[in-house]
Amino acid sequence: MTKPLNIGMIGYGFMGRTHSNAYANVNHFFDLEHKPVLKAVCARDEAKAKAFAEKWGYESVETDWKKLVARKDIDAVDICTPNNLHAEIAIAAAKAGKMILCEKPLSMNVAEGLEMCQAVEKAGVPNIVWYNYRRVPAVTFARQLIDEGKLGRIFHYRAVFLQDWTISADLPQGGTALWRLDAAAAGSGVTGDLLAHCIDTAIWLNGSISTVNAMTETFVKERKHNLTGRVEKVGIDDACAFLCRFKNGSLATFESTRYARGHKALYTFEINGEHASIKWDLHDLHRLQWFDHRTPGPLRAWSSIHVTDGEHPYMSKWWVPGLQIGYEHTFVHQAADFLEGLSSGQPAGPTFREALETQKVCDAVLSSAKSGRWVEVL
Amino acid sequence: MTKPLNIGMIGYGFMGRTHSNAYANVNHFFDLEHKPVLKAVCARDEAKAKAFAEKWGYESVETDWKKLVARKDIDAVDICTPNNLHAEIAIAAAKAGKMILCEKPLSMNVAEGLEMCQAVEKAGVPNIVWYNYRRVPAVTFARQLIDEGKLGRIFHYRAVFLQDWTISADLPQGGTALWRLDAAAAGSGVTGDLLAHCIDTAIWLNGSISTVNAMTETFVKERKHNLTGRVEKVGIDDACAFLCRFKNGSLATFESTRYARGHKALYTFEINGEHASIKWDLHDLHRLQWFDHRTPGPLRAWSSIHVTDGEHPYMSKWWVPGLQIGYEHTFVHQAADFLEGLSSGQPAGPTFREALETQKVCDAVLSSAKSGRWVEVL
Amino acid sequence: MTKPLNIGMIGYGFMGRTHSNAYANVNHFFDLEHKPVLKAVCARDEAKAKAFAEKWGYESVETDWKKLVARKDIDAVDICTPNNLHAEIAIAAAKAGKMILCEKPLSMNVAEGLEMCQAVEKAGVPNIVWYNYRRVPAVTFARQLIDEGKLGRIFHYRAVFLQDWTISADLPQGGTALWRLDAAAAGSGVTGDLLAHCIDTAIWLNGSISTVNAMTETFVKERKHNLTGRVEKVGIDDACAFLCRFKNGSLATFESTRYARGHKALYTFEINGEHASIKWDLHDLHRLQWFDHRTPGPLRAWSSIHVTDGEHPYMSKWWVPGLQIGYEHTFVHQAADFLEGLSSGQPAGPTFREALETQKVCDAVLSSAKSGRWVEVL
Amino acid sequence: MTKPLNIGMIGYGFMGRTHSNAYANVNHFFDLEHKPVLKAVCARDEAKAKAFAEKWGYESVETDWKKLVARKDIDAVDICTPNNLHAEIAIAAAKAGKMILCEKPLSMNVAEGLEMCQAVEKAGVPNIVWYNYRRVPAVTFARQLIDEGKLGRIFHYRAVFLQDWTISADLPQGGTALWRLDAAAAGSGVTGDLLAHCIDTAIWLNGSISTVNAMTETFVKERKHNLTGRVEKVGIDDACAFLCRFKNGSLATFESTRYARGHKALYTFEINGEHASIKWDLHDLHRLQWFDHRTPGPLRAWSSIHVTDGEHPYMSKWWVPGLQIGYEHTFVHQAADFLEGLSSGQPAGPTFREALETQKVCDAVLSSAKSGRWVEVL
Repeated sequence: MTKPLNIGMIGYGFMGRTHSNAYANVNHFFDLEHKPVLKAVCARDEAKAKAFAEKWGYESVETDWKKLVARKDIDAVDICTPNNLHAEIAIAAAKAGKMILCEKPLSMNVAEGLEMCQAVEKAGVPNIVWYNYRRVPAVTFARQLIDEGKLGRIFHYRAVFLQDWTISADLPQGGTALWRLDAAAAGSGVTGDLLAHCIDTAIWLNGSISTVNAMTETFVKERKHNLTGRVEKVGIDDACAFLCRFKNGSLATFESTRYARGHKALYTFEINGEHASIKWDLHDLHRLQWFDHRTPGPLRAWSSIHVTDGEHPYMSKWWVPGLQIGYEHTFVHQAADFLEGLSSGQPAGPTFREALETQKVCDAVLSSAKSGRWVEVL
Repeated sequence: MTKPLNIGMIGYGFMGRTHSNAYANVNHFFDLEHKPVLKAVCARDEAKAKAFAEKWGYESVETDWKKLVARKDIDAVDICTPNNLHAEIAIAAAKAGKMILCEKPLSMNVAEGLEMCQAVEKAGVPNIVWYNYRRVPAVTFARQLIDEGKLGRIFHYRAVFLQDWTISADLPQGGTALWRLDAAAAGSGVTGDLLAHCIDTAIWLNGSISTVNAMTETFVKERKHNLTGRVEKVGIDDACAFLCRFKNGSLATFESTRYARGHKALYTFEINGEHASIKWDLHDLHRLQWFDHRTPGPLRAWSSIHVTDGEHPYMSKWWVPGLQIGYEHTFVHQAADFLEGLSSGQPAGPTFREALETQKVCDAVLSSAKSGRWVEVL
Repeated sequence: MTKPLNIGMIGYGFMGRTHSNAYANVNHFFDLEHKPVLKAVCARDEAKAKAFAEKWGYESVETDWKKLVARKDIDAVDICTPNNLHAEIAIAAAKAGKMILCEKPLSMNVAEGLEMCQAVEKAGVPNIVWYNYRRVPAVTFARQLIDEGKLGRIFHYRAVFLQDWTISADLPQGGTALWRLDAAAAGSGVTGDLLAHCIDTAIWLNGSISTVNAMTETFVKERKHNLTGRVEKVGIDDACAFLCRFKNGSLATFESTRYARGHKALYTFEINGEHASIKWDLHDLHRLQWFDHRTPGPLRAWSSIHVTDGEHPYMSKWWVPGLQIGYEHTFVHQAADFLEGLSSGQPAGPTFREALETQKVCDAVLSSAKSGRWVEVL
Repeated sequence: MTKPLNIGMIGYGFMGRTHSNAYANVNHFFDLEHKPVLKAVCARDEAKAKAFAEKWGYESVETDWKKLVARKDIDAVDICTPNNLHAEIAIAAAKAGKMILCEKPLSMNVAEGLEMCQAVEKAGVPNIVWYNYRRVPAVTFARQLIDEGKLGRIFHYRAVFLQDWTISADLPQGGTALWRLDAAAAGSGVTGDLLAHCIDTAIWLNGSISTVNAMTETFVKERKHNLTGRVEKVGIDDACAFLCRFKNGSLATFESTRYARGHKALYTFEINGEHASIKWDLHDLHRLQWFDHRTPGPLRAWSSIHVTDGEHPYMSKWWVPGLQIGYEHTFVHQAADFLEGLSSGQPAGPTFREALETQKVCDAVLSSAKSGRWVEVL
């Protein structure tokens, strides 16, 4: 029999849905010792929280996150709030001895993130950050190929995360729906929202980043603010690109924007090694592009691996070869790995401490964009 | 509040999982009057049935489908057995006044299928066949484009469903895992298994088929039979291709095989109309290829629509633009439409009667393959 | 020093240009004993013939093909006329002892083709038919892979050649520009024009065809005739599809149409073997799609070979890896192989005799389309 | 009748072949007043020069470029030497009153380039640099779309040029075949060789570049030198990436390397405008990717324009829709435009003066890579 793990979720937006779906489905597909129980969801708007609870089967509702954190019947707190609340909630939850599953990015900045790490480490509570793209089977498979040494020495890494949803100057900033455009709630723009994903994956696949050199731009300088009703200066970065060097000697370029017409969620990365190269694209996330120079000459080519076979990471849990899974499954995989980590004693990553490294790169990027100089990642 | 709809599932194989997943998730994403309750699962092997019930949350287990059909607390019977049991179970369930959700193909042949239609129509029970590919958002969108007249007169339809899993002559036939290779359980080979999908979609998109001219082949003539332990003649078709003409005057080619090395589930179709053309491919099911001749000359081109926007069928229920869904979602959509049909009084298709048309084409195809002549679909 | 080979070209249309370009360029890229000299071009319209001669550097002009064939200073006759003149010219040229390079298809039908074969064989003159697609490097490479046994036993072959240029009912038939729509000049429609290409490649790659079962359609039944000025019945096939069986036991489907909206010259073929599969597409003719089942499981995938390396057929003669060639180069390759064959005594194919096999399949296809029955290729 | 234009070519390597091919073919496809005559080719190795002359039909051979430049019967000098000879030859040719067609990059650096500009401008001779990628029909078409305002305000430009041919540390540097790895002959590595192409296209499509911030790397620090026989320090950049800002306010990233395993000549660029976006890739140079936000919502998609129709730039000169051309045709187009410019008095670009702008960006990039700072392009 499985052991219940009582979840208390704070926030009910887009990420509240993806996490709830993960908890609802993980035991249908993975054989696990623990089984999440949707104990409570917390949001300031009680009616909306209740509607969400009914839809997903949460047993109860809270409107004050402090009450949720204080509840005895909650084993794990899942933080799905805007970024500016991560630290306060996480530190309180750690003090209350709760496990914590925190939406990315870890924090508004390194200082906050460091406090969060110290809190969970002091409390000794399991903790993880939802950098879900590590668990796209194709991405996990890329990591396996790298770990097996199939790429050899790495020369290049390049990643972009391109969107186009903020091009209209009429779009306001702030409030529940658009907090990502409000620097006070989000901390930064594409750097914390999108590049953080790219950086987490990059560090996971290619190791630590040493130095960065960035530029940012805010194309629309002022937008109406939903909270004040006034036209206010936009404080976030609409676009950010940076050059960087990894500790392993490889060079990289990273770029993110919300002004790339035609791209909805074009997160792509490519790694060029001595022997082989890899490419991946979120728009067709079930495929991995692979080039192996060791193939005999005339047959050498990029191949498009349809990552749906039982031999591919996670895929034996789902359907049959040829049948693709989608976006939400990455969260199911992360939930499965987190629960598996509880049983095995080998915590699934990225832990807060691991996610702090991404935060350090983000801070260095924003600092470099201001100074126009190379900045070391400390 | 939602009304419970008590499901009794017969069979627990691959399709048992896809249907159970649909019932488990449909209310998380769709606003519906009814909510499926996993009341009972039935299978001859009690231990396996229990394990399945525990995994998916079925409240009880039966080992005799007749008992399940007789239970008062079951509203709807879901038939996931091998094809040779569909008719008997469906007719009994209809007599017991149950709604029926039957896995495809409807039946072993037209005669059986006709009896099934008469049974559900006499009983007046809601009925549907799980031709799930109609509910791939890209396929549903194709139907919308056709209904809007965007293609004009149709000249050509072509479809293939290619797999490669039976090439090894060492693969046995029959039994739980390999009943699809056993003519006694499956009725036919690729014709009923794969072409039935292609035909259902084709009829749905392009109307009725008038005449067919087919060839079939069984490449491996004998295989060890899992039930008898003896090497026995293979009775199914390994490959089948046919020419056909639709009632609307268009010409078509259909082909299916399990001997197309490199293809796992390559179901593709293409429609060429006077003004526009459409292509779709199950291996990237979230995309629709579209060509519109009315685009100004130098910009005319095939486009690859990433069917993930809120304006696309079903997609407003899922995530955000750019984030793809997968195979299993087609069953969630079918469950949603079935339940919606109960509320609206407009039954979702394909009903048994509609699915019978596909059966008629399958029978005509197999008959033509024997005679080597054009056969009319009656 | 190279030996001059004096060319006399009959016809100056689209194929006149591709052949002239081949003669003009072949010695720039291939080291050959012979060098074509553009001695004379022949066409009924003297002004047009002169303009063509000046553009391409033909030394003289004829307006009567019989005079050209009779000229002592002509070594080789190149036939680029409509199909209905191939036989007469070829037989006369053979009698005059000329080498013959004849545009495809060989003839209007098997009877004519047989006479042509007998004529060139009796005269002992080198002869070839311009089935140029054999010399796309990717297609030649496919042949190499098959010859090396990399595919193993072949199960399936499928080919289409799709165009969309005759959908408008306002398009007339006949005359210089549109003789392909006039049965009197072309013999047949897509069967002789497009399927002949598919069949030639298929026989070259997969051996002889045993039996066929075809359907044809003429969507636009009447068109204005350019020669008579009257609306006349259309005698050609607008679309043709056929099932067939090869002598090696493999099954095939072939289809061609000029009513597939969005396709200009979509000639594609796919071969499925026991161990590997191949796909090719004229719209990206410098690529070959390749799947090898012997690749280790999780890395198995379709690869897209960019056929531009020095190790690929013909490509060492052109530029550097990564730089693609195009359509016209296939004619340069055929000219090179023809000239090489003169030196080596190993004639390049397809000779008239080899091309007659394609004619036999075309005749069987047209006969089957009439009878609705399987027809043996004799 | 056409007027002869006597060409004297200096150098006979890869570019010597592409230019010779352009001269040999341009009048077959374009109606022009002038017709290039291959008067003389010059190279220090007389035997090789003679072989080249025979192959391509050059009437004579020189072994001293000064003699060629001095010849009265030469109208135009084509410079195909390593970069370090461009300036001296061009200045001498200008003084001799010759038209000059110079292979890219213009020069070793801005200082040299400026002298070259002054020389041709003082002499009043027609001059052009072979930045051939402007004349890929898809790229020219991109320019048309931009000129028509179809993209609106530009936000982003990104380009890469990736190769993998110098990964082996055993590859020597210098000499006839490998002068591109020798800083003394090439000036720089990928910056002048590959990024120069990207920059020329970018300026042509998106206007001037204001500031750049670059990094370079030399992965293999020492290589045997073919001229000295000794292992020597490598002076070129193996890889270079830079951030930049255009005068129109758009942001850009550029990257080039010869260490991207799997890429032979992967020159790609993408432009994101307010209304539409464009992508192009040299590996499939006959296609243009196009996204137009003004398309109705659910049909919005990236389309892959097969740039082979008569309405596309240059394509009416070649074959028929659907039939692709290749790499060498870009040089034919440039020759045609150069000759057309002689007749029209509207010189085809890029002239030396226009190409100097690319040189300025290259110099700024190399300077920034040294200083680690943003550098203004003067």
